[in-house]
Amino acid sequence: MRKIKIGVIGASGYTGADLVRLAACHPGMDIAVLTANSHAGKKMAEVFPHLASVSLPPLIKNEEADWSDVEAVFCGLPHATSQEVILGLPRHLKVIDMSADFRLRDPQTYATWYGGPHKAFELQGEAVYGLTEHYRDAIRRARLVACPGCYPTAVLTMLLPLISAGVIDPADLIIDAKSGVSGAGRSLKQNILFCEAGEGLSPYGIASHRHAPEIEQELSLVAGRNVTVNFTPHLIPMSRGELCTIYAKLAGPATAADCAATLSDRYANEPFVSMAPKGVLPSTQFVRGSNNVMLGVYPDRIPGRVILISTLDNLVKGSAGQAIQNFNLMFGLAETLGLEQVALFP
Amino acid sequence: MRKIKIGVIGASGYTGADLVRLAACHPGMDIAVLTANSHAGKKMAEVFPHLASVSLPPLIKNEEADWSDVEAVFCGLPHATSQEVILGLPRHLKVIDMSADFRLRDPQTYATWYGGPHKAFELQGEAVYGLTEHYRDAIRRARLVACPGCYPTAVLTMLLPLISAGVIDPADLIIDAKSGVSGAGRSLKQNILFCEAGEGLSPYGIASHRHAPEIEQELSLVAGRNVTVNFTPHLIPMSRGELCTIYAKLAGPATAADCAATLSDRYANEPFVSMAPKGVLPSTQFVRGSNNVMLGVYPDRIPGRVILISTLDNLVKGSAGQAIQNFNLMFGLAETLGLEQVALFP
Amino acid sequence: MRKIKIGVIGASGYTGADLVRLAACHPGMDIAVLTANSHAGKKMAEVFPHLASVSLPPLIKNEEADWSDVEAVFCGLPHATSQEVILGLPRHLKVIDMSADFRLRDPQTYATWYGGPHKAFELQGEAVYGLTEHYRDAIRRARLVACPGCYPTAVLTMLLPLISAGVIDPADLIIDAKSGVSGAGRSLKQNILFCEAGEGLSPYGIASHRHAPEIEQELSLVAGRNVTVNFTPHLIPMSRGELCTIYAKLAGPATAADCAATLSDRYANEPFVSMAPKGVLPSTQFVRGSNNVMLGVYPDRIPGRVILISTLDNLVKGSAGQAIQNFNLMFGLAETLGLEQVALFP
Amino acid sequence: MRKIKIGVIGASGYTGADLVRLAACHPGMDIAVLTANSHAGKKMAEVFPHLASVSLPPLIKNEEADWSDVEAVFCGLPHATSQEVILGLPRHLKVIDMSADFRLRDPQTYATWYGGPHKAFELQGEAVYGLTEHYRDAIRRARLVACPGCYPTAVLTMLLPLISAGVIDPADLIIDAKSGVSGAGRSLKQNILFCEAGEGLSPYGIASHRHAPEIEQELSLVAGRNVTVNFTPHLIPMSRGELCTIYAKLAGPATAADCAATLSDRYANEPFVSMAPKGVLPSTQFVRGSNNVMLGVYPDRIPGRVILISTLDNLVKGSAGQAIQNFNLMFGLAETLGLEQVALFP
Repeated sequence: MRKIKIGVIGASGYTGADLVRLAACHPGMDIAVLTANSHAGKKMAEVFPHLASVSLPPLIKNEEADWSDVEAVFCGLPHATSQEVILGLPRHLKVIDMSADFRLRDPQTYATWYGGPHKAFELQGEAVYGLTEHYRDAIRRARLVACPGCYPTAVLTMLLPLISAGVIDPADLIIDAKSGVSGAGRSLKQNILFCEAGEGLSPYGIASHRHAPEIEQELSLVAGRNVTVNFTPHLIPMSRGELCTIYAKLAGPATAADCAATLSDRYANEPFVSMAPKGVLPSTQFVRGSNNVMLGVYPDRIPGRVILISTLDNLVKGSAGQAIQNFNLMFGLAETLGLEQVALFP
Repeated sequence: MRKIKIGVIGASGYTGADLVRLAACHPGMDIAVLTANSHAGKKMAEVFPHLASVSLPPLIKNEEADWSDVEAVFCGLPHATSQEVILGLPRHLKVIDMSADFRLRDPQTYATWYGGPHKAFELQGEAVYGLTEHYRDAIRRARLVACPGCYPTAVLTMLLPLISAGVIDPADLIIDAKSGVSGAGRSLKQNILFCEAGEGLSPYGIASHRHAPEIEQELSLVAGRNVTVNFTPHLIPMSRGELCTIYAKLAGPATAADCAATLSDRYANEPFVSMAPKGVLPSTQFVRGSNNVMLGVYPDRIPGRVILISTLDNLVKGSAGQAIQNFNLMFGLAETLGLEQVALFP
Repeated sequence: MRKIKIGVIGASGYTGADLVRLAACHPGMDIAVLTANSHAGKKMAEVFPHLASVSLPPLIKNEEADWSDVEAVFCGLPHATSQEVILGLPRHLKVIDMSADFRLRDPQTYATWYGGPHKAFELQGEAVYGLTEHYRDAIRRARLVACPGCYPTAVLTMLLPLISAGVIDPADLIIDAKSGVSGAGRSLKQNILFCEAGEGLSPYGIASHRHAPEIEQELSLVAGRNVTVNFTPHLIPMSRGELCTIYAKLAGPATAADCAATLSDRYANEPFVSMAPKGVLPSTQFVRGSNNVMLGVYPDRIPGRVILISTLDNLVKGSAGQAIQNFNLMFGLAETLGLEQVALFP
Repeated sequence: MRKIKIGVIGASGYTGADLVRLAACHPGMDIAVLTANSHAGKKMAEVFPHLASVSLPPLIKNEEADWSDVEAVFCGLPHATSQEVILGLPRHLKVIDMSADFRLRDPQTYATWYGGPHKAFELQGEAVYGLTEHYRDAIRRARLVACPGCYPTAVLTMLLPLISAGVIDPADLIIDAKSGVSGAGRSLKQNILFCEAGEGLSPYGIASHRHAPEIEQELSLVAGRNVTVNFTPHLIPMSRGELCTIYAKLAGPATAADCAATLSDRYANEPFVSMAPKGVLPSTQFVRGSNNVMLGVYPDRIPGRVILISTLDNLVKGSAGQAIQNFNLMFGLAETLGLEQVALFP
């Protein structure tokens, strides 16, 4: 099949590397450009030896890239740095941004949570929020897609249909989130050293994590009112994977079974979203390395409440995998192309 | 100092072994009897080689034990098996039970949650609930102490003072609990194999964990009304440690700062309970191997709500350590004796 | 392309499950039969929820299988149980055995190391040792392939070319082997519980591991003399991966550089075997989930000696991946078909 | 008992912290001074929250320390930085150095392996090598003790008696060493991030690790000839613990049983060194957190060879624990004082 030339900006982070891992096996992609300013001049295999078996272009600086033959760019830069880089790209490129820069629709919210004004907000109007199962049509037509954060993907996949169906109350949502350490990136920080993060568990970013406003933006749109959620993330001693336990109040007479039925119906034909098999509780192990989201619904012992569990691989469906899913849509390809990998267990 | 002869019944589980680990360094204890029916005839060092450096009696069957010189017995048997064994012990023995058998005061609740009627409920009236900081006087006078479960210790240490002070609403408590794998014991089960529990995270016992009624019993006593909690545990890929993230509603005008002040005051003179140092979030790493509980209080972004975090080592303050703390009280010793070990980090 | 119907016998072990993971994405395979006597009647997703996204036949008993349309069978049964099962299969089936039953060519050696006489030794003459890169032609023609053990694959991939080229001395080989816990299988054993194998490291099977005679058999054939090796395995707290550090004496004037050149030449055109990139030491992380072997050669400080490092994923190139590589050869397919997955890191 | 005022220089590394952990429970120590130039002004609990339960002096800069009442100093600075600091200390202080600066007796060897000339070599003559069980008398009289590296402690504890007894050949020693990640310290380096070091295994410092010359120095002294060893370390995904698998040639008619007997005799009365119990293989889990070394001896299948296994906790017997053991000797205290902690398992 035709190979579409792609580039990856910021290829030296975990997100960029996972994009390359998947793109290397994608039958419709040809990796033509890899940029990583701090590692320019190196081979990718020096920076990520697990990619040594793949034939790849050398790492170059952003400004050295020749984009003329390239059709799509994935951006894996850290938050706040991708906006200017993307603004500077030729307009013929379709852009799939894995950073947070174009996720928030409101300039003021962005400025509040990201510590300063946006530098390319003129592009925000163009950006489509890349939660594939919920923005599919807009993504097909988009030039710039802002892929959701990993936590928002897990949370919104669970909550959007339930709020939309009116079976839970958007005013009382408590999200206890747990993530593997790769969510913190590859930059050197003491708290993600093996000896600090290993054999232990710690909360972080309590009531201050930047994924909260992103979740609230999308829930509010569906709820038709301002939604504020409790969002409390925890760092778990594993590399990959993410699981959100959501505590919700049922709306009126709705039951946990109603919630389960709503989700089953909504995702019946979705290749990457499914309910946990009978007798199985969703666990990160079951989605590791795959583009799948696994959902589970459980009645609370407290009448009128329900427990909702959503799990995914933060680097795949939570980032690079969903980015490719969006790429497939943007280029009219089968949505599952290059994403058929089954989860790696154990 | 005088050495009190002690026995450990069920010494071949993790709880029993951790009791032995601590007892071996306790200046007022002499380990005289170790029983483990399935390993009778072996040396403890064969069953737990990390204890090889300690001089210990051989493992024998329960019925072979000579209790005549022994003054105190710690019981580390599985739930439902300790009740009859304890009933059969000579009455001169003080008993510190680390199982769940004497924790629930109501026979019906016991039968409902533990799958059948209690076989030694006549002892329940005598049993004192061994949450040391909250039942100290009764423990001093007790012959039989029922040490709390690990989760209840973490949760009640946090919630009892807050409910007692009226700063949180006992009607809206959501407890997201996370435990290391040692909480599941040493029996062979597939879900606790390294390859199953490692590099991943899974919920378990949703809305059906036996620590829920234990927590509710104690909260109800203090609240003066029936309390039902949401209690959702998760298995974390670490051996030791436990952390509970509790989502609560503030009562009336109370603030998170009020909660923090209540706890600081309540535990100001407690050697084993403390607030997280400034700038530090409670993490299991900081209490591993020690008898400490570390608490933290954080305002929620949702007005009128608060996030409460409590962490401890499930085998120490959550079991064997608290058992020794109670022993110290029962024999008039300094409460911290043999429990001075600092947490092991990294 | 044409889909060849395959069966997996013993699909409920880690090896069987990894075969299914890879087969599900293989464009030339159709999984028609899955057997697992102890789980017959269940869905595969109940036994391995990470496979829930794949459409698979139910698990049945071996004797219930209808092999009439099936062309190839992969056998993932434990050692000593596959021989009789394979003997009982219809002769039209090509068989790729992942157990140890047909690896040893000498009945006496088998009986010595596996505790009793072989029950299907008549098939041994037919069996081809499935170390793909070294028995390719014979595998193409084989009906029954005995896939090597995981350790032998790592060791022989390194040593066969070096002994063949005469650059190392086969009389002085010390193999310090390290494996993740999945190498021990999914059966319940105390030493592979998370709390026993985690946060620690232990040797096992010292001077008695069954992969030693298998390694010696193949080395002896190439060396033209009886070779005895030191082989000492260690259990490492990780799920997947295996690394062998081999200490060897250089033959005559040969150097470490000669060893490296020998390997580079030998494997220049092999898709799954490569030298570590410049500046990179072989690590299990770099091959996890892939069918790759990564090799490294280092001069010892002791003159005349060399340090050889070989790493692979025990469940892939060490088992299910190599099995599929052999299947591809046996059916005239491209050898890399279905094995293009890049390593999963982190 | 009398409390000896001590200081810890470089208290913000893992070694310094573990010294504090042990010293806090040592009945003959009073921690009077803690220095950490990069964290001066902070509380220790901010830098190491697991020490929050201990009352400690604040962290200050080295030059701010008042040493007048202090009798002993432990130095946990990185290699090459402690020499000048120790040179500048008042001479009334007894110094226990945990760095490598005073371990090598030969200035040229030091310069070769540590990248430049020593800056305080005049102190080397005074320094005693602090391998307690082998230099006990000299340590008792020493003012400056250079504690051995973690690997040398494990290796020399095993090999010194065997070479001394003439049962193994010092000319053919292969040491395959495995360490947990804490051995690499708390400084920020990419290879010790959780996602890099977790779920995987990698060799490092092949034929170039600085513990090799230290091992060779001590072996040569006992062997009465220059000894060169193969020393190949590996990074294991665990925080604490170290295990060395040593492959040796038996001398003349000696057997593995002779080796075991030699070690049993030599260490019969040593509190911290023991042979693995019957049926147990030495594992890091069994010594974690304790000052113990566990040894095992196994016959190789290759005639005339033996496999020797030695394991310890790199931060305790491999550093801070042995430092305190030496302190006890230097001050005439019971050698086990403050070191009675049993290993923490699981």
